[in-house]
Amino acid sequence: MRGVVMYGPGDVRVVDREAPKIIEPTDAIIRITTTCICGSDLWPYRGVEPVDHTFMGHEYVGVVEEIGDAVQTLKVDDFVVGSFCISDNACEICRAGYQSRCVRGSFVAAAIGTQAERARIPYADGTLVPTPGRPAPELVPSLLAASDVLGTGWFAAVAAEVGPGKTVAVVGDGAVGLMGVLAAKQLGAERIIAMSRHADRQALAREFGATDIVETRGDEGVAAIQELTNGLGAHSVIEAVGTQESLMQAIRSTRPGGHIGYVGVAHEGVALPADELFFAEVHLHGGPAPVRRFLPELIDLIWDRKIDPGKVFDLTLPLAEAAEGYQAMDQRRAIKTLLTL
Amino acid sequence: MRGVVMYGPGDVRVVDREAPKIIEPTDAIIRITTTCICGSDLWPYRGVEPVDHTFMGHEYVGVVEEIGDAVQTLKVDDFVVGSFCISDNACEICRAGYQSRCVRGSFVAAAIGTQAERARIPYADGTLVPTPGRPAPELVPSLLAASDVLGTGWFAAVAAEVGPGKTVAVVGDGAVGLMGVLAAKQLGAERIIAMSRHADRQALAREFGATDIVETRGDEGVAAIQELTNGLGAHSVIEAVGTQESLMQAIRSTRPGGHIGYVGVAHEGVALPADELFFAEVHLHGGPAPVRRFLPELIDLIWDRKIDPGKVFDLTLPLAEAAEGYQAMDQRRAIKTLLTL
Repeated sequence: MRGVVMYGPGDVRVVDREAPKIIEPTDAIIRITTTCICGSDLWPYRGVEPVDHTFMGHEYVGVVEEIGDAVQTLKVDDFVVGSFCISDNACEICRAGYQSRCVRGSFVAAAIGTQAERARIPYADGTLVPTPGRPAPELVPSLLAASDVLGTGWFAAVAAEVGPGKTVAVVGDGAVGLMGVLAAKQLGAERIIAMSRHADRQALAREFGATDIVETRGDEGVAAIQELTNGLGAHSVIEAVGTQESLMQAIRSTRPGGHIGYVGVAHEGVALPADELFFAEVHLHGGPAPVRRFLPELIDLIWDRKIDPGKVFDLTLPLAEAAEGYQAMDQRRAIKTLLTL
Repeated sequence: MRGVVMYGPGDVRVVDREAPKIIEPTDAIIRITTTCICGSDLWPYRGVEPVDHTFMGHEYVGVVEEIGDAVQTLKVDDFVVGSFCISDNACEICRAGYQSRCVRGSFVAAAIGTQAERARIPYADGTLVPTPGRPAPELVPSLLAASDVLGTGWFAAVAAEVGPGKTVAVVGDGAVGLMGVLAAKQLGAERIIAMSRHADRQALAREFGATDIVETRGDEGVAAIQELTNGLGAHSVIEAVGTQESLMQAIRSTRPGGHIGYVGVAHEGVALPADELFFAEVHLHGGPAPVRRFLPELIDLIWDRKIDPGKVFDLTLPLAEAAEGYQAMDQRRAIKTLLTL
């Protein structure tokens, strides 16, 4: 089968890969119908993370082609949305809502690689959620978004305890930050401040529900948030970048007792000064999003056309042109690239 | 009046200080009847923090001697317990329960110094809580504990979302850690693991409700907690030390999705690795305890003799012998020293 492999920084190729087979009775093989490129795929692309002949892709929707003997909730031909984290959805950690840290879990990235025609999904019952039927084509990008970027933005908003009456600041205007804006709107936030310096992303943020835009960042950005919140800071801050600067900006933009939901993957070396964090007296929660927790609800919202997160894809290419999709995102010509099969 | 002044590391003296006067109409002057020495008073004592002719003490109970014209909830002769943080208990941050970060707030430490015969308490209505009557003498140590160390341990337990069915680990066996054990018990925890290497503190921890003792610390301590929790980690971890080692121990002892309540004041230079924190997927919350939030409830529990936090004081001295009290705590001959006036 054809699949995307990254050979080294900047070197992405669509090549022949061995087709997956059922190994465990809890596996399913899915034929991927739509996949996409993640902001995190750009790190190895940019040489920030090691890469060596790596299978790429961890977001996916598709059709079940084959199931192992132990799979109970899925059948062949089901259209499914899966999380970027494999989970049995049955262990104590999963049952508490942290399927991204399932005791039997793993990441789809690298080991599986869903920028490909097919994928073997372990713990299929615990990882995949079938849609109510075969989706209308215009719903597919939104369902695909649920696989990671929407689920991640949603988790950030939940972790930041977004809700009615709250003022929310969103640090990061990438796809996850924009999904955080959408989630905040859906969860009833009163005011949503998107921090963005790019006109196209600002426009999308407003479309998703942002009420205010702050163009500055760092100390100036913090000052702007403080000014918009009577000097108190936001109730809820979504951090969707993961750098030292963005994390400090999030901490300093949050009022005492407020909540930060952080989903920007922090790189090695980023460190939070414990004394500043202590006196800031904020709540901090984040990590790899337990997308599986939210998938049933997100699929319903999309199916009922209450949200349209698929708008975050501003470039669509066939899988064969994945290399151009990476380049477009790297050069910020695209927010997020959808790949069709 | 007489009061404790620290002239430099290890140099504590009881000297004459100017008696306080009403300055603002929201002030009260209280005659302190009982005060104590805090673990945090040992930092300047040990030279970890700068000190220069500093008024000491921030825990106190006493009798109202004089009130400013604007004080409404207190009258002369009331017996009061006060927080170690001044708060108006009226601003938006206070109303959200974060009186330790009141927009008009300040710390009692250094500026006021309650290891003294009298103290001027700003925003008396928002800082002091009167007891139902003049307390029986045996209740006074417990009421004094509520002023900081109990309120702080209680906040840590609340921040760590302690509750029925939960397994709680407590890092730190100082007075605050021990109060965290008491709070966890009172809040209904199923299992309370106290981490302590000292027999006397272990005994007190058991008396306050600890069900298990772990004597190891660092990686070994983490392994012990993991072993006691099926390899998952504790639901709730109370961190009551504030060092790099203890904070990492707390993070690594918490299960994914679990909660850390940290109240050990982090020193400059302590830094949390953001990548480890991200993948740990824990909730982190802490800071200076908003004791005022909990004071009415804590006073009731003490008044009704449902809790006896005063047991944490294992040395009682007259104010005049404060220097010996500091020395006893510094040399770990005493957990916490009560000073009578």
